[in-house]
Amino acid sequence: MEKPSRNVYLKMKTLEEAAALWMGADPERRCAVETVPTTHALHRTTAGPVIADRSVPHYHGSAMDGIAVRARDTFGAGDTTPIRLQVGKTAFPVDTGDPLPSDTDAVIMIEHVDQVDESTMEIRAAAFPWQHVRKVGEDIVAGELLLPEHHRIRPPDVGALLAAGVLSVSCYARPKVWIQPTGTELIPASRAGEAAPGEIVEFNGTVLSGMVEECGGVAELREIIADDYAGIREGLARAVDSEADLVLINAGSSAGSEDFTAAVVAELGEVLVHGVTMMPGKPTILGIVRGKPVVGVPGFPVSAILAFEQFVRPLLYRLQGLPCPSYDEVDAEIARKTPSKLGLEEFVRVILGRVQGKLIAMPLQRGAGVITSLTRADGILRVPQELEGLDQGEIVRVRLLRPKEQLDHTMIMIGSHDNTIDVLANEIKRRDGRMQLSSGNVGSLGGLMAVRRAQTHLAGSHLLDPATGGYNHSYVERYLQGVPIRLVTLAVRQQGLLVRRGNPAGVRGVRDLARPDVAFINRQGGSGTRILFDYCLRKEELAPEEIRGYDQEEFTHMAIAVTVLSGRADAGMAIFAAARALGLDFIPVAEERYDLVIPESFWEDPKMGLLMEIITSGRFRKMVSELGGYDVSMSGTLAGQWDGKKWLSGK
Amino acid sequence: MEKPSRNVYLKMKTLEEAAALWMGADPERRCAVETVPTTHALHRTTAGPVIADRSVPHYHGSAMDGIAVRARDTFGAGDTTPIRLQVGKTAFPVDTGDPLPSDTDAVIMIEHVDQVDESTMEIRAAAFPWQHVRKVGEDIVAGELLLPEHHRIRPPDVGALLAAGVLSVSCYARPKVWIQPTGTELIPASRAGEAAPGEIVEFNGTVLSGMVEECGGVAELREIIADDYAGIREGLARAVDSEADLVLINAGSSAGSEDFTAAVVAELGEVLVHGVTMMPGKPTILGIVRGKPVVGVPGFPVSAILAFEQFVRPLLYRLQGLPCPSYDEVDAEIARKTPSKLGLEEFVRVILGRVQGKLIAMPLQRGAGVITSLTRADGILRVPQELEGLDQGEIVRVRLLRPKEQLDHTMIMIGSHDNTIDVLANEIKRRDGRMQLSSGNVGSLGGLMAVRRAQTHLAGSHLLDPATGGYNHSYVERYLQGVPIRLVTLAVRQQGLLVRRGNPAGVRGVRDLARPDVAFINRQGGSGTRILFDYCLRKEELAPEEIRGYDQEEFTHMAIAVTVLSGRADAGMAIFAAARALGLDFIPVAEERYDLVIPESFWEDPKMGLLMEIITSGRFRKMVSELGGYDVSMSGTLAGQWDGKKWLSGK
Repeated sequence: MEKPSRNVYLKMKTLEEAAALWMGADPERRCAVETVPTTHALHRTTAGPVIADRSVPHYHGSAMDGIAVRARDTFGAGDTTPIRLQVGKTAFPVDTGDPLPSDTDAVIMIEHVDQVDESTMEIRAAAFPWQHVRKVGEDIVAGELLLPEHHRIRPPDVGALLAAGVLSVSCYARPKVWIQPTGTELIPASRAGEAAPGEIVEFNGTVLSGMVEECGGVAELREIIADDYAGIREGLARAVDSEADLVLINAGSSAGSEDFTAAVVAELGEVLVHGVTMMPGKPTILGIVRGKPVVGVPGFPVSAILAFEQFVRPLLYRLQGLPCPSYDEVDAEIARKTPSKLGLEEFVRVILGRVQGKLIAMPLQRGAGVITSLTRADGILRVPQELEGLDQGEIVRVRLLRPKEQLDHTMIMIGSHDNTIDVLANEIKRRDGRMQLSSGNVGSLGGLMAVRRAQTHLAGSHLLDPATGGYNHSYVERYLQGVPIRLVTLAVRQQGLLVRRGNPAGVRGVRDLARPDVAFINRQGGSGTRILFDYCLRKEELAPEEIRGYDQEEFTHMAIAVTVLSGRADAGMAIFAAARALGLDFIPVAEERYDLVIPESFWEDPKMGLLMEIITSGRFRKMVSELGGYDVSMSGTLAGQWDGKKWLSGK
Repeated sequence: MEKPSRNVYLKMKTLEEAAALWMGADPERRCAVETVPTTHALHRTTAGPVIADRSVPHYHGSAMDGIAVRARDTFGAGDTTPIRLQVGKTAFPVDTGDPLPSDTDAVIMIEHVDQVDESTMEIRAAAFPWQHVRKVGEDIVAGELLLPEHHRIRPPDVGALLAAGVLSVSCYARPKVWIQPTGTELIPASRAGEAAPGEIVEFNGTVLSGMVEECGGVAELREIIADDYAGIREGLARAVDSEADLVLINAGSSAGSEDFTAAVVAELGEVLVHGVTMMPGKPTILGIVRGKPVVGVPGFPVSAILAFEQFVRPLLYRLQGLPCPSYDEVDAEIARKTPSKLGLEEFVRVILGRVQGKLIAMPLQRGAGVITSLTRADGILRVPQELEGLDQGEIVRVRLLRPKEQLDHTMIMIGSHDNTIDVLANEIKRRDGRMQLSSGNVGSLGGLMAVRRAQTHLAGSHLLDPATGGYNHSYVERYLQGVPIRLVTLAVRQQGLLVRRGNPAGVRGVRDLARPDVAFINRQGGSGTRILFDYCLRKEELAPEEIRGYDQEEFTHMAIAVTVLSGRADAGMAIFAAARALGLDFIPVAEERYDLVIPESFWEDPKMGLLMEIITSGRFRKMVSELGGYDVSMSGTLAGQWDGKKWLSGK
């Protein structure tokens, strides 16, 4: 077969259709059955009923330290009518676990026995038959069912098996999963440090391996294969001829000119599904080659993980004869209008926290390539494909990515992102492992809105009032009428001009940007940094027209840094962290006060107490100082107390 | 120090006191910190903040297959105003992941591009800046926090670390746990088949090892040490001087004459707690020896497991810097009055199921030595130490031992136990892995009571009416007035006389029991088997006085079998399974009909449909026949339909 040129999705399937085709293809598919020593059978699944080989106990044994007796010899004993027993004749000292001497049928606890002399014991209460005796088969009778078929073996089960003399168990083998990374652009993780532009570190394979392991499987992560039709065909042929129960090819599952997976699966076997109406995860391929299930896993990491969860996870459990465990879910109120494409089931990552009694879900970034949208998330919600999105305030079902109990220990912080938030998040977790700070980056104004709508425990804001040069107060007055809050300064951060290392253009400050030989790169209108830059220009009495590149806009601190690094501009305004990330020089030009906006309703919460304790600690200040680009002398001080109508302090 | 004689609990502590002493002893105790390759860091816990080494993406890359362009070159393009671009000048073909050629800032999807000729592309829509571009740092900015301290690493986290060039992570070592079985009576599991009376198979060590593993630790299970003071002292000294983070000694933790653990811990270190007011689990020892935590784990398996959960599990999580995960819990109605000792917190194992909308908890056997009380249980409830028990119908909090979703797929069956129930349970699990039959053995009459109180989905009953020789009907009439049910025959089982192999006494039937040379062993008055035996005697026109041993009583089928095996009697009446378990001969003398009692309210439930399908299947009949001692010709037939007042059929 010739190398195919650009192919297209044959016919997209809905999630339900795809799952039905995939899981319906061979409902009885199981891994091979193997015999496993019981001592190594933990978490394996029984492939047949397990029957007790011996009874437990296998003899009548004493359940106490004391004396074994015939119960009838003790009848009539009482406080006023003690009975004496002869050691070796009517009383036999036993320890717990000792076999009962023949013809005895009860044990009297040692605490209830008086030793009269070496050979005489006295008792003052009768024993009833079989008292304190563990009888044969009391726990397990030989021949009885210990574990049913399709049972996942837990620690106590192992105990029952060993006790009943079952030294090996017939179990399903752990599913073997062949994971084949493909892609000419990929380099192994070990070379991550040297990745050149266009080279991408292969990490999906390790992520998928971990997920396979969590489902009880054994992952075999293979070496990267380049995007080459013949090579991928050969790789797939080898995979399906191996002992693997399941083959994952990552990626080449899309419809690009170098996406060969679908064609290779079609050539060697059958494509059941190419393209699923889910997002992320659309370019998923499901097929059967030489009787083995094959999944073309999409390349973007979030897509890969979601496709795994939808199609690989259920199959791995089925191969072991287990029902696929459901995920923990909760109902939450979505904090933002969340548009979504009609006809695509969208998986939106959210942070979750309980604010004023309501569980709030705040959507994070939605790109399929943004792995941190998963690592930072507390949950995932689904926008059904028949909807064009969800309205703010709708109650939605959210699948949890963290333990349920975490919800009550999560602080939500919405607003402008800043690296000091990372330090704060880390210190919170360090001080109290149950606690967590989940932060969402929606900009300073978005944070104030979230406070107003009681959707966050606190917000982070650095809004400059160009009229006064002050921070945050005028915005609180405008947007938080009726909402009492406190402003607590987290840190004062420097904004500055980023220039290439060594400052080849010799830029010393904003004035120099007016030089004709200096090309500037600007931030987009409306951004806090743009407002600050305009404020700096006015202070320097410079007009925008005097700055070459004022009309060239970028959207993030990092984009400014990249533009400067690439030489397309000589200078741009951004925070120190962006300069540091790309090794640029940084010329401080202004300071921004970054305040926490804390609703009065949250002020007395113990979580807030911990937060304040951290912010005012020397350790926190030291760590923030070490980031560079911050002044921490004001950290933890009250910048203002607002009762909803007027400032009680701080202005 | 001399070998101490019998010691006593110094002073029992409550669970709360013990936990406070134990966990309060060294709140900052952690495992050593070690550097772990990221590819092997799954499920490890970070010992410090993890910072991104590189930005992700580390270059501006295309997010689509298509052409890279300068957005400003495309402005004005529309359906009626197409714009032509020159390949290599204003249009650059790119695949997903390719770096953007310098000076381009947008990508147009290939689907939206018309190729006019080899070097000319036409577009009919403008591109906006940065469309379909993955910008540097869009996901991760070098220097930002990837994972906080005390974070348990999940698969997507591994992806984020590798992507950001973090190839190794500083993590807490997995806690090493030295598990020391002690006991002269113990033999290793490998010799389970040859255990003599008084020998007990060591399996707690393997159970504890599995539990350690589930908490993220590494178990080192040591060889058995005999009950010898010097030997145990030497063993403990070696354990605390090893690299272990925690030492478990099992057992010798009680107050018997050969229980040395407390004395050894006291000699080498400090005993914090000896004896906890919990049951099972009372003889727990908590101590510190040469700075290392040491737990004297009780010997009975259920005690060992509960003591582990209370004291070892939280410490293992703390050693890794993690909060101890809470167990899933539900509220349920307790089906039986459950007395409990004042002053002891009792852990009662229960089966759980949703009957007529209510979640019902049915207590199982309570012995600390009965491991199957854990393996058969669905949950554990606690009777607080300040209560003398729980009343039937009380709502109690129950910790789940199975996934929560299992609750809706569990059938509860209460009543007389029979081995065919095992077959049924196995077939249910085999046919539908989500389903489960949880059975509680409370005798036939107890089963009817549970049906009357709507505490069970169905009951199992084999109640003989001696007046008629019929089964179950008259009892339904007496106890289920107003409760419509159906009786479905599960199987007809044989009761017979158990005799030693080869039948040395030559017993051929009940008549022979009247021979003066034959010693009989009877079941206790009131038991179904006793009623049946008396019925047999009457049929044979024999008087009890004619049977030697009629007044000697045992309480279970197995006890009858043991009495016969030991030679203390020549014959006794029991079911075939008891004979088979101990290798006795079996002389059938009577047949009992074992019926399922199915409330009409459950009859239409799909779970019931599955049950009936199984009972009427050839496979089920074959398996039951193979057990021996059963007649399956009536299995699955309706023995009666009762509308609460009269029989609609079957009588």
